Amino acid sequence: MRIQVVGRGRMGSAIDGALRAAGAALLPIAGRGADGAGADFVLLAVPDAAIAEAAERIAPGPIVGHLSGITTLAPLAEHEACSLHPLLSAAGSRTQFDGAWAAIDGSTERAVSAAGEIAGILGMRTFRVRDEDRAAYHASASIAANFLVVLAATAERLAATAGVPREALVPLAEGALSNWVRLGAGQALTGPVVRGDTATVALQRAAVAERDQQSVALYDAMVASSLALIDEGAAAAEGDE
Amino acid sequence: MRIQVVGRGRMGSAIDGALRAAGAALLPIAGRGADGAGADFVLLAVPDAAIAEAAERIAPGPIVGHLSGITTLAPLAEHEACSLHPLLSAAGSRTQFDGAWAAIDGSTERAVSAAGEIAGILGMRTFRVRDEDRAAYHASASIAANFLVVLAATAERLAATAGVPREALVPLAEGALSNWVRLGAGQALTGPVVRGDTATVALQRAAVAERDQQSVALYDAMVASSLALIDEGAAAAEGDE
Repeated sequence: MRIQVVGRGRMGSAIDGALRAAGAALLPIAGRGADGAGADFVLLAVPDAAIAEAAERIAPGPIVGHLSGITTLAPLAEHEACSLHPLLSAAGSRTQFDGAWAAIDGSTERAVSAAGEIAGILGMRTFRVRDEDRAAYHASASIAANFLVVLAATAERLAATAGVPREALVPLAEGALSNWVRLGAGQALTGPVVRGDTATVALQRAAVAERDQQSVALYDAMVASSLALIDEGAAAAEGDE
Repeated sequence: MRIQVVGRGRMGSAIDGALRAAGAALLPIAGRGADGAGADFVLLAVPDAAIAEAAERIAPGPIVGHLSGITTLAPLAEHEACSLHPLLSAAGSRTQFDGAWAAIDGSTERAVSAAGEIAGILGMRTFRVRDEDRAAYHASASIAANFLVVLAATAERLAATAGVPREALVPLAEGALSNWVRLGAGQALTGPVVRGDTATVALQRAAVAERDQQSVALYDAMVASSLALIDEGAAAAEGDE
């Protein structure tokens, strides 16, 4: 399978480089106007809004795939189509495909297999996400990655008002995430809301309102979601500390 | 300094055991009614609501400390008083003091030093949090630990509606947290909100509303806090994926 990556941005360059490093048969990486001539598989590494136009430029023949998480297969409809969304946090200079997960889909079983083959070359594990599930899938990824950073930044900002160094929050957050991974949400969720310690929750909320007014809505939503999680029977009782 | 731990709950037993293991001079661990006779330092490992009563039982003489994050030094006011709050995520069977951080305070410099000495025996790093900063400090810890678990659980529940295994979210969340630690919130925050990709945000929100209505307030608050973080100039522009 001769592969061609179209799109010279960060993701295009990274995936082209990783595929070459893994020994895949690649045509030279191309810019967005490429027609994919000579390729069996064209991988569009372009912004979501540019997928449809880039797909139109591809001459009929190859399987055409995109790398978007939110975009359906519709913009690729003139081709045998697939998608491959690497579930990576995009920050930093490293793009480490090996060991990450990827969401794949395809308009034919052959196209799904091709997406899976590309993922396999990159050392990625895959799961399938169909068009109707994409938005929920993509939202879950944004919550787990982007919003986790927002949450940490909120804690950091509030801690700073109390003279607490962000370094002190790092093992705490890492421990909580590790508990979620190892034990699941039910066992990992502790703290005043789980303990039914409404006095402490009220003191915390008042401090947020006084020192970081913009975060009150986030605090309230988190308390409400904590209570919902507890109502689901997911949360464990905590000890006496 | 002869130390006595008062309170046989999980935290009391853990801290008593860790102090013994580190070679500290300890009187036998005591129940809540103990008077602290013979001790130079009494560490109350009791629920927040029981601190005042436990402190009253202690005969004048020793420095008296508590382990609460939210409680001020007021309930210990009849004694030379201090506090030592280990910044640990409480879930699971392990209580690993070594390497963790602790918030300390004291009514005298000698009491602050005593709290620092106990923390040092346990291998903990310390920072000082005074009474007026406690609620903000404690809220920051709940956000960084408890609410992080709630966020992960929310992502997990939404992912499940799309057939996405929680395992796929693990490296994503770990990567995001690692990026926050290494790069800071400004560089670590990526995703559709940072990109100004309002179409994707709208699709995500609609999916949350359809599949997990109770999480819409959390989603909206997170978007708002993301925008506030960006307005602070903290967030970096993202690439083309």
